[in-house]
Amino acid sequence: MENGAGNGMAVAAAAAAAAPAATWNFAPNEALLGLTALSVRGVLGRVKAGMVAGGGARPVIPMGHGDPSVFPCFRTAPEAVDAVAGALRSWEHNSYSTCVGLEPARRSIAKYLSHNLPYELSPDDVYLTSGCAQAIEIICSVLARPGANILLPRPGYLFYEARAVFNGMEARYYDLLPEKDWEVDIHGVQALADENTVAMVIVNPGNPCGNVYTYEHLAKVAETARKLGIFVITDEVYAHLTFGERKFVPMGVFGEVAPVFTLGSISKRWLVPGWRLGWIVTNDPNSVFQRTKVVDSIKSYLDISSDPPTFVQGAIPNLLENTKEEFFDKTVKILRETSDICWEKLKGISAITCPSKPEGSMFVMVKLDLTCLQDIKDDMDFCCRLAKEELVVLLPGCAVGYKNWLRITFAIDPSSLEDGLDRLKSFCLRHSKPTK
Amino acid sequence: MENGAGNGMAVAAAAAAAAPAATWNFAPNEALLGLTALSVRGVLGRVKAGMVAGGGARPVIPMGHGDPSVFPCFRTAPEAVDAVAGALRSWEHNSYSTCVGLEPARRSIAKYLSHNLPYELSPDDVYLTSGCAQAIEIICSVLARPGANILLPRPGYLFYEARAVFNGMEARYYDLLPEKDWEVDIHGVQALADENTVAMVIVNPGNPCGNVYTYEHLAKVAETARKLGIFVITDEVYAHLTFGERKFVPMGVFGEVAPVFTLGSISKRWLVPGWRLGWIVTNDPNSVFQRTKVVDSIKSYLDISSDPPTFVQGAIPNLLENTKEEFFDKTVKILRETSDICWEKLKGISAITCPSKPEGSMFVMVKLDLTCLQDIKDDMDFCCRLAKEELVVLLPGCAVGYKNWLRITFAIDPSSLEDGLDRLKSFCLRHSKPTK
Ligand SMILES: Cc1ncc(COP(=O)(O)O)c(C=O)c1O
Ligand SMILES: Cc1ncc(COP(=O)(O)O)c(C=O)c1O
Repeated sequence: MENGAGNGMAVAAAAAAAAPAATWNFAPNEALLGLTALSVRGVLGRVKAGMVAGGGARPVIPMGHGDPSVFPCFRTAPEAVDAVAGALRSWEHNSYSTCVGLEPARRSIAKYLSHNLPYELSPDDVYLTSGCAQAIEIICSVLARPGANILLPRPGYLFYEARAVFNGMEARYYDLLPEKDWEVDIHGVQALADENTVAMVIVNPGNPCGNVYTYEHLAKVAETARKLGIFVITDEVYAHLTFGERKFVPMGVFGEVAPVFTLGSISKRWLVPGWRLGWIVTNDPNSVFQRTKVVDSIKSYLDISSDPPTFVQGAIPNLLENTKEEFFDKTVKILRETSDICWEKLKGISAITCPSKPEGSMFVMVKLDLTCLQDIKDDMDFCCRLAKEELVVLLPGCAVGYKNWLRITFAIDPSSLEDGLDRLKSFCLRHSKPTK
Repeated sequence: MENGAGNGMAVAAAAAAAAPAATWNFAPNEALLGLTALSVRGVLGRVKAGMVAGGGARPVIPMGHGDPSVFPCFRTAPEAVDAVAGALRSWEHNSYSTCVGLEPARRSIAKYLSHNLPYELSPDDVYLTSGCAQAIEIICSVLARPGANILLPRPGYLFYEARAVFNGMEARYYDLLPEKDWEVDIHGVQALADENTVAMVIVNPGNPCGNVYTYEHLAKVAETARKLGIFVITDEVYAHLTFGERKFVPMGVFGEVAPVFTLGSISKRWLVPGWRLGWIVTNDPNSVFQRTKVVDSIKSYLDISSDPPTFVQGAIPNLLENTKEEFFDKTVKILRETSDICWEKLKGISAITCPSKPEGSMFVMVKLDLTCLQDIKDDMDFCCRLAKEELVVLLPGCAVGYKNWLRITFAIDPSSLEDGLDRLKSFCLRHSKPTK
C-alpha cells in the first residue's frame, strides 16, 4: 500500500516536544456519561465484570438479555438467510438507499402489518430503521422540543428515557400494575400528563414484564391518549411472540382514535437481532401526522441519519413472504415450554416471587425479598454476586427502573434454563438468613 | 395469522365519533425541519423533483452524488461479497454485537490503518459504526456541550453542521482556498477559534473539492490545532481514492501533535455505500482522549445507539485481507480517466470555471459565471433546470455551503460522463446571453 508517512513519527514527535504541554478545550458532557446507566448493555457489562472467564467447567447461563440466537433451538429460518444472501448477491443493492427506505421493502411491511388491522397501511406509512433501537432514536428526536415531556412505563425499557433525555425531553414514568397483569395505570397516566406531554409509550408484548394486552385494555389506552391530546408509541418488537391465552393485538387497530407510531423489527420474531432491520409505521387514518408535520419531521431526521444496509432492505419482501409458519410455531412452542419451566421453578425459590405468569416476549419480572437474604445489598449486588458465584447472568431491576426486582430471560434452551434456575436456587439458599 | 382485531374498525370509529374533535399537544421542532437543507439527499431530492421520469429516450446522468456503484465498471470486488455472504451463512453473527463492535473486526481495521502510520493502532482505538455517517453523528454527539463550537470547512460536507446543530453545538466555517488547491486557511482557523472551540474538521481526500493534502499541510493543521487546544476530526471516507501526483497521507500521522479522530468506512474504496460499515478511530498516542473522558463519552453514546449488522462486522477481517490490489488499482485508473475527461471538457464550457484539477475523491468544484447566462437565477435554479431540460443531475453549491458554484461527480462510467458533460455544455450554450 502507498505510504506517504515514512518518517512521520520523528517529525511529529519533534513538533510535540517543541510545543508547550498542550491543554484541550474539550470538556465531557456529564449528562451523556450518565446515560450508560439506562442501557441494558451498560448494566449487563457491570454485572458480568466480576465474572471470571472460563472459571471452572460450568458454562455461563445468559439470562440477562433478549437475544436467544446463539442457541441452536432459536436459529433463524433458512428462508431468511437465503433472502439476505440473495439480495447481497444480486448486485442490485450496493448503493445508498433513499432516506425512508426501499419501496418494495416498505410495501411488504405495510402488507405484513395490515393482516392484523381493520384497514390497509400504505408503503408511505412505513420508514425503515436500523432495528427498533434506531426507531426509538428517531421518534424521540422528532418529538423532542424544549419543555416537552413523554410518558414511559415503569418498569420499562430505559432506552426510551436515554434517547428522550439526550434530546432534552423530560421522561415521566407511569406505573404498570403487577397485580393486574402489568396493565397500564390509566389514572396515573392522566395524573402525569399536561399540555407539554407529546406522547406515551407502551411495550406490548412487554419487556420486561411479559405482559400481553387485551383489545379492551388497548382501547382504553387509545381513549386516554385522545383525551389528553397525546400520541401513542407502541413498541411491538416482540409482536406475535405470545404463548398464553391472549393473542397479540396491535395498537394500530386504534389509530383512528389516537394516532399511533408502531415500532418494530425483525430482531425478535426472526431471531436475528444482529441484522438490524426495523421500522416506524404510522397508524393514522386521520392524517394527523401529516397535518401536524410529524411526517416532515421524521423525513428531516432520516435525511441526517444512517440507514439500514440496502441489501437487508432488499431482502425484506422475500423474508416476510417466504418464512414458513412452522418456523414461527416452533419458536412459540419453545417459549411456551421455557416460560412454563421458569414459572414452576421460580415457585420453589423463597426469596423470589413472581406476581404474574408471562404470556409474551421473552421475560418475566420477579420480586426479590431481601429480608430473606443475608449479606445482599440490593438487586445489583444480587446479580453481580450471582454472576460471579454461579455464572448465571440476570438483569437487575434497576436497569428497567424497578429497584430490587429482577428481570429473567427464559428465551434460552430448555436444559440451560433448568440449569440456570437450579443455580439461582442454590445461590438463594446459600445466602438465606438462618431461620430463627 | 392470528387476528384479534376483527371488528376493530367499527369500535374504533365509534369511539372517535363519540369524542370531541381531538387536538394534539405535539408541535414540530422547526430547527429539525430546517436541517433537510443541509443534506445532500434533501437537496438532490429538490433538484430531481422537476425531472419528468422516463421523459424521452435519453437516460438520466447522475452526477450529483458520491455513489458510482450502479455502474458495472464500479462494481465491488467479488471477494467483498463473499466475505459478507460467508459471515451471514456462518450462523455465528446473528446476535447483537457489543457496543464498540466485534473484536476481530476492530483488530483488522487497526491493522489496515496502521500500514500508513508510524505507530501501531490497537483494536481499542477502533469503534464500528453504521457508515461514516453514523461516525459523524457519534462524534458530534460526544463533542457537543452547551456553548461549544466546532470549525468546519467551506465548501464542505454539511452533514457535520446538521449533526452539530441538532445537538446544540455551534458550527463555524473556515475557508478552503481555491487558489491553493483547496488548502485549509490556517489564519482563518486561528481567527475563528476561541476557548469553546472543541474541534476542527478536515475532509481528505476532499468532498466536494477533490483536494489531496500534502504531508506538510497536514503538519501545519496539526500544529494549529495543538496551539488552539482543539481536536482534529479527519474525514477519510475517500482514503486511497487518489489519482494525481499526491498520495493520500492519513492525518493520524500527527496524532502525537494533536489528538485525531479518523472517520472512515468501506463505502467508497470498496464501492459499497449501501453496506453501511464505518469506523471512528482514535489516533492519540498520548492518551488525551482517555484522560479527558472522550473515550467514556463515545462508549456512552454507543450504549444508546444502533450498531452496524453483526454479520457485516464479522465479514470485515476477510474483506480487508482478501480484496485484491487489482481491484483498487482498477477503480483508481477509471477515476483518473474520468477526472481527466471532466477537466478537459469543462474547459470548453464558458459559463463554468474550474480553479483546481481534482486529485482525489470523486468530485470537482466549479464556479458558475451567472453573468454569462440569461434567465438563470442561481446555482439551485441552474441545477433544477439542467435536470429538467437535460436529465443531468449536479449538486448546487448551496448544498456544500458555496453559493453559485456546482459540485460535479465524475465517478460514473466514462461514456455517461462524456454524454453528461456534453449535455451540460448544450444547456449552457442555450442559456448564454447573446454576445453584443
Ligand atoms: C422493548 C424493546 N424495544 C426495542 C428493542 C430494540 O430492538 P432492535 O433489536 O430491533 O433494535 C428491544 C431490544 O431488546 C426491546 O426489548
Ligand atoms: C465527506 C463524507 N463523509 C461521510 C460520508 C458518509 O459516508 P458513509 O457512506 O460511510 O456513511 C460521505 C458520503 O458521501 C462523505 O462524502
